[in-house]
Amino acid sequence: MAHSIGIDIGGTNTDMGLINEDGIIVARRNLPTNRYTDFDLYINDISRELQAMTSAAGVEIDGIGIGAPNGNFYTGCVDNAPNLTIKGNLDFEHALGSRFSVPVALSNDANAAAYGEYVYGGARGMKHFVMFTLGTGVGSGIVVDGRLVHGSTGAAGELGHNILVPGGRQCSCGRCGCLEAYTSARGIVQTYRELYRAAHGAEPDQEITSKLVGQKAHEGDPTALETWHQTAHWLGIAMSNAVGFSSPEAIFLMGGPAQVGDPLLVPLRQEFEANTLYIFHNTCRIMMSQLKANEVAILGAAALIKMKQQKV
Amino acid sequence: MAHSIGIDIGGTNTDMGLINEDGIIVARRNLPTNRYTDFDLYINDISRELQAMTSAAGVEIDGIGIGAPNGNFYTGCVDNAPNLTIKGNLDFEHALGSRFSVPVALSNDANAAAYGEYVYGGARGMKHFVMFTLGTGVGSGIVVDGRLVHGSTGAAGELGHNILVPGGRQCSCGRCGCLEAYTSARGIVQTYRELYRAAHGAEPDQEITSKLVGQKAHEGDPTALETWHQTAHWLGIAMSNAVGFSSPEAIFLMGGPAQVGDPLLVPLRQEFEANTLYIFHNTCRIMMSQLKANEVAILGAAALIKMKQQKV
Repeated sequence: MAHSIGIDIGGTNTDMGLINEDGIIVARRNLPTNRYTDFDLYINDISRELQAMTSAAGVEIDGIGIGAPNGNFYTGCVDNAPNLTIKGNLDFEHALGSRFSVPVALSNDANAAAYGEYVYGGARGMKHFVMFTLGTGVGSGIVVDGRLVHGSTGAAGELGHNILVPGGRQCSCGRCGCLEAYTSARGIVQTYRELYRAAHGAEPDQEITSKLVGQKAHEGDPTALETWHQTAHWLGIAMSNAVGFSSPEAIFLMGGPAQVGDPLLVPLRQEFEANTLYIFHNTCRIMMSQLKANEVAILGAAALIKMKQQKV
Repeated sequence: MAHSIGIDIGGTNTDMGLINEDGIIVARRNLPTNRYTDFDLYINDISRELQAMTSAAGVEIDGIGIGAPNGNFYTGCVDNAPNLTIKGNLDFEHALGSRFSVPVALSNDANAAAYGEYVYGGARGMKHFVMFTLGTGVGSGIVVDGRLVHGSTGAAGELGHNILVPGGRQCSCGRCGCLEAYTSARGIVQTYRELYRAAHGAEPDQEITSKLVGQKAHEGDPTALETWHQTAHWLGIAMSNAVGFSSPEAIFLMGGPAQVGDPLLVPLRQEFEANTLYIFHNTCRIMMSQLKANEVAILGAAALIKMKQQKV
């Protein structure tokens, strides 16, 4: 029986998985993305790992699915992703398709995660949902009528860069006030630092990470708790706006900062309902991703192959 | 050949049209919506007008399509629309379907307008677009992959109530900072009044309407020009956020305040591009509706019948 390959390309790591027909990851490999600046070299090394993985398992593959920052479903390319060390327009579909002679499907990393949730996770059977991924940045994937929304360009589903506070915080994209500037790991750290300075008149005496802000919240630190409350406020508004767009059954949340749990989720559910237009009250649940954080993107990437084949 | 009926239900008027198979409105009738508080009486009068219209034309009808505030595509009901004098849950699909024994399709008024643009107007052939309707309120209709987005509840596409300025202006929906509070006719008047007071230290000495603010802008009145500039700023951000969601080919604009033309459109196109995420630059046009303002909703409503039949 044919297996498929799912690849999750992050700024730091490239995770590769071999997936059987039951959606189980039966083998994994990885490469350090940030060691590469040359695309051909990177593709050579990926190909070598994939070949080794499939040979060791003694299986054929029927396709390769890839989730990558700025990944474009229609072109199969990654175009100038800010957090990749390999620059330019990277044609993954052609590069891997020509080496393996199988279909290659590519989408952005958050879209792949959303699709993984749809095919294998908590969104199974849902026709309308939205996934928010919190991490270095904030990504999103949107499913409408059972299909990932790629839009006219192939790059739809960028709610992390929706402007939430006009004239607000500087965002990494060059504009101001994006959701990402408030609810990414970096945004959360910035909120903590601002609140700490306001409360103590000094900088924190240790390096602050979103994970540490999570630990402090569980220890009852009021600055940390207030940080998560403010994060919930911004994310709750962004989620209520997403409901005004596609009226999903559920909004899923995943990624490192979301692992904090109740300090974020309890105020998030309150802020979400408080900011949701009355006609949508109690129509949409906020749920955590039901898949393992290190599996969802690989599974979703592999599932993209089937979606691509339906499309073509 | 069978004709169809399109009905546009507004807070003030109910416009009814008889549409032939070429999409031409061959007869029209109307009723004053705001004279009614009893649903049965209203349905009786609508039915009488429809019967008179089809009898006079000597044609059969194959369906009735309705665009109405808070109209729900799935239930065929209008549920407690704030700007209708008839209250409660109004089951148009059952009431008219049982009298005429034809399929009845209902959606909200902005969705109907978007669908009219799609079937008969400037969006023909587009797979992804968004329609914003400016009027007493601000509505929107969204087409993704060639289908109106109704979401899990049937009420999707409410971008007028997306929160644009957290903690901002009071909106008619009870929340604060919605797009509608800034770019509806009322929002535009409020902006003019605020700017006038700031410039002159007094209230304007005449009644202000969004139409008058438009006339003043064409006469070069600096307060009026600045009003449209600010309106363009808010609307441009909302449109750029819509692009981050579904990456449409075009965003259409219609409704009374949009008729002002250049004083709104010129800064709007600038604000839109300036606030759009770099990956979407020059991928989406802002266009005026290509249909007559008093026809688009009726045509769109009639077109909903076909969409409903595909769905069922």
